[in-house]
Amino acid sequence: MLEATLKQGQLLKRIIDSIKELINDANFDCNSSGISLQAMDTAHISLVHLLLRAEAFDPYRCDRTLSLGVNITNFNKILKCASNDDQVTLKANDEGDSISLAFESGKKERYSEFEVKLIEIEADQLGIPDTEYSVLVHMPSAELKRICSDMAILGDTVTITATKEGVKFSASGEIASGSITVRQDASADDEDDNTLIELNEPVSLTFALKYLNIFCKSASLSNRVALSLSKSSPLLVEFKFQENGHIRYYLAPKMENEGEENADDE
Amino acid sequence: MLEATLKQGQLLKRIIDSIKELINDANFDCNSSGISLQAMDTAHISLVHLLLRAEAFDPYRCDRTLSLGVNITNFNKILKCASNDDQVTLKANDEGDSISLAFESGKKERYSEFEVKLIEIEADQLGIPDTEYSVLVHMPSAELKRICSDMAILGDTVTITATKEGVKFSASGEIASGSITVRQDASADDEDDNTLIELNEPVSLTFALKYLNIFCKSASLSNRVALSLSKSSPLLVEFKFQENGHIRYYLAPKMENEGEENADDE
Amino acid sequence: MLEATLKQGQLLKRIIDSIKELINDANFDCNSSGISLQAMDTAHISLVHLLLRAEAFDPYRCDRTLSLGVNITNFNKILKCASNDDQVTLKANDEGDSISLAFESGKKERYSEFEVKLIEIEADQLGIPDTEYSVLVHMPSAELKRICSDMAILGDTVTITATKEGVKFSASGEIASGSITVRQDASADDEDDNTLIELNEPVSLTFALKYLNIFCKSASLSNRVALSLSKSSPLLVEFKFQENGHIRYYLAPKMENEGEENADDE
Repeated sequence: MLEATLKQGQLLKRIIDSIKELINDANFDCNSSGISLQAMDTAHISLVHLLLRAEAFDPYRCDRTLSLGVNITNFNKILKCASNDDQVTLKANDEGDSISLAFESGKKERYSEFEVKLIEIEADQLGIPDTEYSVLVHMPSAELKRICSDMAILGDTVTITATKEGVKFSASGEIASGSITVRQDASADDEDDNTLIELNEPVSLTFALKYLNIFCKSASLSNRVALSLSKSSPLLVEFKFQENGHIRYYLAPKMENEGEENADDE
Repeated sequence: MLEATLKQGQLLKRIIDSIKELINDANFDCNSSGISLQAMDTAHISLVHLLLRAEAFDPYRCDRTLSLGVNITNFNKILKCASNDDQVTLKANDEGDSISLAFESGKKERYSEFEVKLIEIEADQLGIPDTEYSVLVHMPSAELKRICSDMAILGDTVTITATKEGVKFSASGEIASGSITVRQDASADDEDDNTLIELNEPVSLTFALKYLNIFCKSASLSNRVALSLSKSSPLLVEFKFQENGHIRYYLAPKMENEGEENADDE
Repeated sequence: MLEATLKQGQLLKRIIDSIKELINDANFDCNSSGISLQAMDTAHISLVHLLLRAEAFDPYRCDRTLSLGVNITNFNKILKCASNDDQVTLKANDEGDSISLAFESGKKERYSEFEVKLIEIEADQLGIPDTEYSVLVHMPSAELKRICSDMAILGDTVTITATKEGVKFSASGEIASGSITVRQDASADDEDDNTLIELNEPVSLTFALKYLNIFCKSASLSNRVALSLSKSSPLLVEFKFQENGHIRYYLAPKMENEGEENADDE
């Protein structure tokens, strides 16, 4: 059986809220080391991988591997009944057909319990190969969110070009063309505001803004985001929850000749 | 004639705003002791009873009984032109066909006057019998509002079960079933946050959430709400305005066997 | 060529945002003294005249007269990509077919550049005759905005009547009639809250609220607004940007006999 308590329900609320546009149904895979979820979006273009380590919970107990199929939209509705500060406890029996959520307010004067029905989902576990990335960018997540939202005003795709000068996001469309460049900057008063660029090799790749903008909903989960780019691999966008887990999004680049060639030129 | 001045228009603005979804037209019944309004909702399922005592106004003058028929939607639109801090004066002549509203800002540099046409409404005064209730719950109005809104995620009805353990609100539907339990708690730093339960006899009754959620719009009128339940009577939901009046909602329970039997079991 | 830098992009953002409902396309006329724009609304009922003096920019350079035709909706979308605190630089070549906007954040770690295509607009420059106005009202812009929004609840037009007693805005419609009166008041702690009325001759004129409410979007540009009224001239509504420019709206009165006669009576 699973029994896992989060001191602050807010983390789970935000996780589910940030992936609900991407995926309809998914399995929570629970074992002694924690809870994970891996799913492709409904259009099978991007992949999300969530990990919540056992250390994120207190207490955490999971005797044997459990795969709990959940409709994310419904799960999200129920989680909206938890306050950000509520303690959230997940419980499931080995042979049960439901997952139980209990929400407790700090002062214990309110106690809520919900039983959500589980669903059968075909396991579709995809191996994610370890990749050597050409460029690694650590930046404020709010900044990435804003850039992707601005670029979407211009067009459907953004070209991310990383060189020694910085990382340039560019897009063009009928009304205008434009670009936003971020530069290495490790001087901010608040470390979270720094932009750090590790460049092994210049790269220029084009991505669908629709997906990037959905990924950026996870900016509420972490002040920082890491972008990992490599010419022949999907983009990796990672938001870490302190030491206790992460949410990772993978998105294949658009196979436009233009994007490919630019990378070679520089 | 009627002449009644509220130092802070906010109270009247909120009252009208909170009943506008429930009733279209209603008579303001004015006499020397104050202004009252009693009406059934458009579907004739719930009853609202508003009382504003003469003491709420300064000055207040009403020589003889007046019944002023008002379209609540239109009255609400006009009240939106008053600032929360504006002094609001209501005036009506004995034989007039309109009610006048005057709004004055504290510093008197702005003065607004509106004449709203009165309408004829068939008087439909219903006697409300005095009832001995089995259970009386005093709780923060924001808490009730939130519980009713959470329960509406699960289904159309909520079962309120009051026992020695506390008051349990439960609902179930296709995606999940759930319950929220509030317990007696008189220890809050702020008295307004206390939950007080007076139990003569356990009771379990089922109500339409649609109406409860409309009633809870009045949570803006008072930090506290009182629920009075009895097996064979409508639920009474009361919001008091300090010492100067109240708004009371009555709602008949759903006649489901299930709800009835639970009450007997406990 | 034009090169003009605003230290705070917010001013340009708000200007364009406030005129975007009124006009679709317009020429920015640039010369050594600054940038101006003059256009009738799409229904040819009101006129907007914007002036940004060279002094508003630093640096400002415009060698020869340039007329830059811009689609306001698209220009507004691009400006939304600037933060309020971003430095905004406009650039255009004498023979170019685009205007360039560059946004720089204070700390320079982000740099955005956009190229917006110019469009051909038939020059339609209208002379605005100097007028001796009968009444000049200086008031808080938020107050005018609110009055126009309140009056629109009652009807489509507002009659503005200025007498020694003050300035009365009145409207009437199916649900009610009403009026709001503002009086001379030079006693406010904050000068911006004063209402100053210069009256040469009483006047009463009726205007379409739809346009007044659109003009009032410019209340975000200035705490103060000036209304200039005269019996036989369009109303002038002016918002000043400190010393560096203004936005002026002109609106012809409704030619209703009622409105005219009232003015004569007083």
